[in-house]
Amino acid sequence: MFSKQTYINRRQTLKEKVGSGIILIFGHNDAPSNYPNNAYMFRQDSSFMYYFGQHRDGLVGVIDIDNDREYLVGNDIDIDDVIWTGFVPSVHDLAEEVGIHDTAPMDRLKHIIGTATEIHYLPPCRHDIMIQIGDLLGIHPAKVRESASLRLIKAVVDMRAVKTDEEIEEIEKSITVGYRMHTAAMKACNPGVSESYIGGVLAGIAQSYAYRESFPSIVTMHGEIMHSNPSTQPLEAGRLLLCDAGAESIDGYCSDHTRVTPISGKFTQQQRDIYTIVEACHDLVIEKAHPGMKWLDMHLDVCRLMATRLTDLGLMKGNPEEAVRAGAHTLFLPHGLGHMMGMDVHDMEGLGQIHVGFDDEVRPSTEFGLECLRCGRRVQPGWVMTDEPGIYFIPMLIDKWKAEGKYLDFLNYDRIEQFRNFGGIRIEDDILITDTGCRVLGKETIPYHIDDVEDFIS
Amino acid sequence: MFSKQTYINRRQTLKEKVGSGIILIFGHNDAPSNYPNNAYMFRQDSSFMYYFGQHRDGLVGVIDIDNDREYLVGNDIDIDDVIWTGFVPSVHDLAEEVGIHDTAPMDRLKHIIGTATEIHYLPPCRHDIMIQIGDLLGIHPAKVRESASLRLIKAVVDMRAVKTDEEIEEIEKSITVGYRMHTAAMKACNPGVSESYIGGVLAGIAQSYAYRESFPSIVTMHGEIMHSNPSTQPLEAGRLLLCDAGAESIDGYCSDHTRVTPISGKFTQQQRDIYTIVEACHDLVIEKAHPGMKWLDMHLDVCRLMATRLTDLGLMKGNPEEAVRAGAHTLFLPHGLGHMMGMDVHDMEGLGQIHVGFDDEVRPSTEFGLECLRCGRRVQPGWVMTDEPGIYFIPMLIDKWKAEGKYLDFLNYDRIEQFRNFGGIRIEDDILITDTGCRVLGKETIPYHIDDVEDFIS
Repeated sequence: MFSKQTYINRRQTLKEKVGSGIILIFGHNDAPSNYPNNAYMFRQDSSFMYYFGQHRDGLVGVIDIDNDREYLVGNDIDIDDVIWTGFVPSVHDLAEEVGIHDTAPMDRLKHIIGTATEIHYLPPCRHDIMIQIGDLLGIHPAKVRESASLRLIKAVVDMRAVKTDEEIEEIEKSITVGYRMHTAAMKACNPGVSESYIGGVLAGIAQSYAYRESFPSIVTMHGEIMHSNPSTQPLEAGRLLLCDAGAESIDGYCSDHTRVTPISGKFTQQQRDIYTIVEACHDLVIEKAHPGMKWLDMHLDVCRLMATRLTDLGLMKGNPEEAVRAGAHTLFLPHGLGHMMGMDVHDMEGLGQIHVGFDDEVRPSTEFGLECLRCGRRVQPGWVMTDEPGIYFIPMLIDKWKAEGKYLDFLNYDRIEQFRNFGGIRIEDDILITDTGCRVLGKETIPYHIDDVEDFIS
Repeated sequence: MFSKQTYINRRQTLKEKVGSGIILIFGHNDAPSNYPNNAYMFRQDSSFMYYFGQHRDGLVGVIDIDNDREYLVGNDIDIDDVIWTGFVPSVHDLAEEVGIHDTAPMDRLKHIIGTATEIHYLPPCRHDIMIQIGDLLGIHPAKVRESASLRLIKAVVDMRAVKTDEEIEEIEKSITVGYRMHTAAMKACNPGVSESYIGGVLAGIAQSYAYRESFPSIVTMHGEIMHSNPSTQPLEAGRLLLCDAGAESIDGYCSDHTRVTPISGKFTQQQRDIYTIVEACHDLVIEKAHPGMKWLDMHLDVCRLMATRLTDLGLMKGNPEEAVRAGAHTLFLPHGLGHMMGMDVHDMEGLGQIHVGFDDEVRPSTEFGLECLRCGRRVQPGWVMTDEPGIYFIPMLIDKWKAEGKYLDFLNYDRIEQFRNFGGIRIEDDILITDTGCRVLGKETIPYHIDDVEDFIS
């Protein structure tokens, strides 16, 4: 948690941006895993934490702009619960900690709203909150997300997108934990060890620091499958292991890194050929990213470098610039260059990617490859972005495109066939857009230059 | 997964028990953590796994008893998803694996139900399923749980309560993982290490075997708080660390154990005095539990032994039998002796504890202490129960009762005051009710006799 004044200031700014009406920010409830009392690890709503700071379940923050009042709404815990959960501060004490003087039990929420007609809320991701809002406002739960307040969404995105120094400090703490997770995973990456063993190392280290994984870790010899969770498969000498994992603090600040480690300890020549292209693309972003540049252009710069280098390697052919314009490179890179990161690992994705990553100038695309770009608009100082280019050989996609005769002018399918079982490589770091360019976040770099990786794990 | 025939037989038995109508068993969907695409680790519904075996999200099993047809309902995954998740078998293939020939996409579910009026479903714990059932049957989501089919609940409880040999084998595999978790935690239990570090060890080991924790691990120097999750507090020499944790396989089979470790490596005399009472209570269950006995009686036997020994120690006074009848012992043991365990760590708790642990002969109690007894009825061969007595010194409860002058004939508050900061001790193992008595499950015993514990961690 930050200082009381931080939360007071944030709510003040939000009030000014939204201008009128009542703002409701719903905190999360416990999420049942397999029965009501067996909950997943509690994860507070990020916007609730941003404006109301508290981690307890069952709270709703209310900002009544028209009457200039703020409330923290929630039920206190009684003696019977204390036996099970220990001492829990009262809702009143939680409210005071973040500069709010009025509280109320949950059954008073409807009364607080009263007859107000201008009610702003954010689109919830949890179905219990959809039911709660639905009941409160007389909407079907399935319609609750689409009735969320665009004005509130835009105000929240504006504010949360630009990270303050104290937020960057929190992100860098998460990156320190992420560093420990990744370097331990790299050291543990040996033939015969299972993918799930590496997954256990990542989860165990995150939790040992009272952090959690910022998303389900991707640990796989099949790097070409974007979201492949660890299997019980033993690691095979000669293959690569892709780990995409991050840490998240109790306050929600995230890290997100990807490293690829040769299971035998050394990269083969074929692996070096592809790895060095991804490495160059990754480093291009660090060199070029600066405020005011469209992230879409940064993405396309990376695609052109990738296409040029894949052409040198004989996997692509023709003019690389034309190939990228046509979309041929998306066989190898079907996803976007990176996303905003903050209190959510895909920052504010739940508020609608179109509001986070796009604006009137840069609209989202429906083209294959570009439709997965999570951000296109001009980046600003204080934004944290992931830099995560990758090259993948996806057998089903190769077969499909080959059968369809797609991009025959730009893709050398015979050569591609030699990489059929290669897997995939991605290198990912988190960067801060500064006033003049960008800075890679984190006090220590998780090794990623080829020689550094081989040295580190030897 | 078990054999195809196992699932066919289970559904056949269920059909016979329910007799008529249509049974709907809803599988789980992904549960969002902080935005729709950032899901918690997928956890399938246990009853869905029991009858339909499959682990994929977005499935519903249908057993139309009246027309003697079975369906697996769910949507197939297309090529775009394959890039993100890898190859996923078709719903048809998943159905065939468990002996079902008819499948349908989700938007056909309403059509399959048709005009049937006798629809049986289980009370869901997830709010997305409440909305889904609500829409399907025209009920408000908040009313869905109470409209569940009692006949179906009772049939499922009857079947799932009695574990087959192959299920016991799965539980014992989970216990093997639980053994590794607990023994590693005991070895890591040293002054200066944080509670969360031990939590990381438990989570990391579970996941390294492709298991998960069967519930959020309780790791605490404050054993008197029943559900205390690990803090960042460093372990203090002289105190005890209570770890209550278990493993759960992908098929949902659980383990659940509690051990208490002296952080300094040796128990103090005061700790020995309390520990040996809990140990004796724990061992009494192993000695006495047998089929046909009311679990409520087993609980009360343990309470009487505990009260007798606490009287010897001067913490209680008067006649122990009368003290237990009056409820004075619940200051020390405010929870029940144990619960059924299986595919849920509190087995089938989501179906309603009253249907799982009670019957016409033994009704649940509302008295303090007894209201937390999760099972009272006669245990049967094949049931798996936890044996988990504990003694706790809960400062807020002691102060409250003392101020109220409660049980002055049975409680020696002056002596209790000397244990004010003691914490709490619980010892927990999982037992199988056999034809003649019971058997402690697990190939190896996590050390719990005082000398064994001290030897093991030295």
